[in-house]
Amino acid sequence: MKAKKDLKIEIMAIGSELLTPYFQDTNSLFLTERLNDLGMKVSYKTIVGDDWDDLALSIKQSLSRSDIIIAIGGLGPTKDDRTREAFATVLERKLIFNKELLQKIEERFKRRGLSMPEVNKKQSYVIDGAEILENRNGTAPGLWINARKKKIILLPGPPHELKPMFDKSVGPYLQKFKTDYTARTVLKITGLAESKIETLILDLHPDDPNLMLTTLAHPGQIEIHLSSHSKKSQEQADERVQKLEKNILERLKENVFSTSGEELEEVVGKLLRLNKKTLAVAESCSGGLIGHRLTNVPGSSDYFLQGVVAYSNEAKISALGVSPALIEKYGAVSSQVAEAMAKGIREKARSSLGIGVTGIAGPSGGTPEKPVGLVYTALAWDKGLEFIKNIFLGNRDKIKYQSSQKALDMVRRHLSKNKKGKEA
Amino acid sequence: MKAKKDLKIEIMAIGSELLTPYFQDTNSLFLTERLNDLGMKVSYKTIVGDDWDDLALSIKQSLSRSDIIIAIGGLGPTKDDRTREAFATVLERKLIFNKELLQKIEERFKRRGLSMPEVNKKQSYVIDGAEILENRNGTAPGLWINARKKKIILLPGPPHELKPMFDKSVGPYLQKFKTDYTARTVLKITGLAESKIETLILDLHPDDPNLMLTTLAHPGQIEIHLSSHSKKSQEQADERVQKLEKNILERLKENVFSTSGEELEEVVGKLLRLNKKTLAVAESCSGGLIGHRLTNVPGSSDYFLQGVVAYSNEAKISALGVSPALIEKYGAVSSQVAEAMAKGIREKARSSLGIGVTGIAGPSGGTPEKPVGLVYTALAWDKGLEFIKNIFLGNRDKIKYQSSQKALDMVRRHLSKNKKGKEA
Repeated sequence: MKAKKDLKIEIMAIGSELLTPYFQDTNSLFLTERLNDLGMKVSYKTIVGDDWDDLALSIKQSLSRSDIIIAIGGLGPTKDDRTREAFATVLERKLIFNKELLQKIEERFKRRGLSMPEVNKKQSYVIDGAEILENRNGTAPGLWINARKKKIILLPGPPHELKPMFDKSVGPYLQKFKTDYTARTVLKITGLAESKIETLILDLHPDDPNLMLTTLAHPGQIEIHLSSHSKKSQEQADERVQKLEKNILERLKENVFSTSGEELEEVVGKLLRLNKKTLAVAESCSGGLIGHRLTNVPGSSDYFLQGVVAYSNEAKISALGVSPALIEKYGAVSSQVAEAMAKGIREKARSSLGIGVTGIAGPSGGTPEKPVGLVYTALAWDKGLEFIKNIFLGNRDKIKYQSSQKALDMVRRHLSKNKKGKEA
Repeated sequence: MKAKKDLKIEIMAIGSELLTPYFQDTNSLFLTERLNDLGMKVSYKTIVGDDWDDLALSIKQSLSRSDIIIAIGGLGPTKDDRTREAFATVLERKLIFNKELLQKIEERFKRRGLSMPEVNKKQSYVIDGAEILENRNGTAPGLWINARKKKIILLPGPPHELKPMFDKSVGPYLQKFKTDYTARTVLKITGLAESKIETLILDLHPDDPNLMLTTLAHPGQIEIHLSSHSKKSQEQADERVQKLEKNILERLKENVFSTSGEELEEVVGKLLRLNKKTLAVAESCSGGLIGHRLTNVPGSSDYFLQGVVAYSNEAKISALGVSPALIEKYGAVSSQVAEAMAKGIREKARSSLGIGVTGIAGPSGGTPEKPVGLVYTALAWDKGLEFIKNIFLGNRDKIKYQSSQKALDMVRRHLSKNKKGKEA
């Protein structure tokens, strides 16, 4: 039997905004991930604007070199949205009005009590012979065209429309062109510096071309991405990744908080639920970010009772019961005030655990003794109280993020310890 | 005199890691900004890996369509670094050993007390006829090649090598090909649907090839990007954008909240400061996001007094003073409770304005009467109280974001009205 030739796959992101300094195509990262899961590699990515000649030429050249073209964007109702027309022209196919599609778009507006603007009518035209990919989250339908022995897939640009459409209507049909088995995992780590991690796992970097290790460092979180290929079987691909994962886990231990893609707030949520604990949060310099992250998790109302953003001293006193004398004596940015905030919110909300965060997010407000980036995070529970002092680097955003990460990680480590204690 | 034709400019980012889900080319954003400042537009961006055939074909196709090609990456010493060889092959030019270059690379290692690894010798080969662009921050020299009436510029991938090299050895030489003056602006809008905006400004879409209008829609926020070119003068470019901006503003009026790149939370912050008002926020379904956004703005502690995330009924009662009877009668997700939350936090924090947000962020918790996405936002001030009911579409993230956007926009519109009232 002849081995299947690898298909050339190209992702085209269409939109003039992607040729400005302000916008980046991120959809292709999602698509690449999904394609990799199918054992497919991406060979080219092209970004082109809505200039008709550029777009048409780009499509022609892509058709000459790739077997599968996934084009993103330019399916909207405006004049700048020319993807449909450009592909139809290059493929020498007509655009045909589809009445059912128009009705669906009209209904979508109706459900929201609106009438469909005239411009949206354009979205009910379909390239002759194309299959329509339903868009449950927007008005632009996707299109799948088989032409010139190629597969051409047009997807809408908004990620919340593109992603479900790919997963429902594209991925399952690409499955049959799968050539490789792949496996992948991500280890997420917090509480260790990148250079420390690198030293700990230096000798574990694989020499095998079927196995890949990539480290991605963000302030407050390091990710180690492992991926493997196998022509033989899924089991072989899985085994390759799992063996390496196990070796890394033995080195990095409890600093790894997730090996299944979960965010720290999800891990914390699960631990709270598992231990039947509730949480309340008092935030100063993190400004609501901890509450925001916790409530990003569906069902978080079961364990997240209350958050307070207490920027001013007055709010720390009135909303959290921090003593004015304590603030006077140690300053609002101090371990004492962080602990009092954690204790205060725990009592107010009657939660099992309380978090307190106070610091200087900058860019102003720093002093030689208390520089920008100085952050105290504290945790209060029924039998105790603890704090951590950090000096985070980076801008305001990064300092806020690292503060939230540290606070959530204190909860994680506390509950993991507790759990172990119980099991012992 | 014959008018200069617009040059087609292409940026090629070369490297297999850029075809994985984990890495993005960001160098092209820097280059685009610099090129735009020279009045030059980018027409294509291409991303390709180190596969020889893919790379060679990509170079051929780029040469067929573009006048200036800036290729990034693949100039390193490893086997995967094939940019030099691939361009030499496609251009049918030899690679010529350059002794001086080798000495410079050797010296670079020497200065760090190291001897040059054999692999780095490769970097001292130069495409025949190319000009060498000095790299002060790494071993890979850049190359400038004039061939087939095209300009081909090869730059190293690490940003700290590429950026100074472009600014020193490329930008100044491209200056003389400057054909255009450019201007740009962004209008940010909230409170109007994309299709409604499109209808309102339909006839304003410029027919002038020197003027560009691009609409970018996110749930809760629409951006209209305007940019102009002029062959004549900066004044003409500025005037073109300003005229269009003025016309759009007349149509969209107070729905435009920013024309200078500001985020909504920054606009709200400025208005609070200008009107000498303070703000406190009571969040249920937005979960802390409003506080997080407000505190992303440096100096927000001056006007943002306090936030409370009250997910549970108990927290709404104890932390915000909402009456249990009100919750009992209307439900936690109701205009009455939103208003009571706004009033409650305003009193607790003794702020000029209070915001209350309650709704169902999903994915569960919806009923036929109160579906996922139903959100009440309320605003309380010294003389009144108002609420808005919305049904937002999208997932949990999107519903949270739109809730925060609506609440901040209520503050903005309230303060803008007030200001006008005072001025009248």
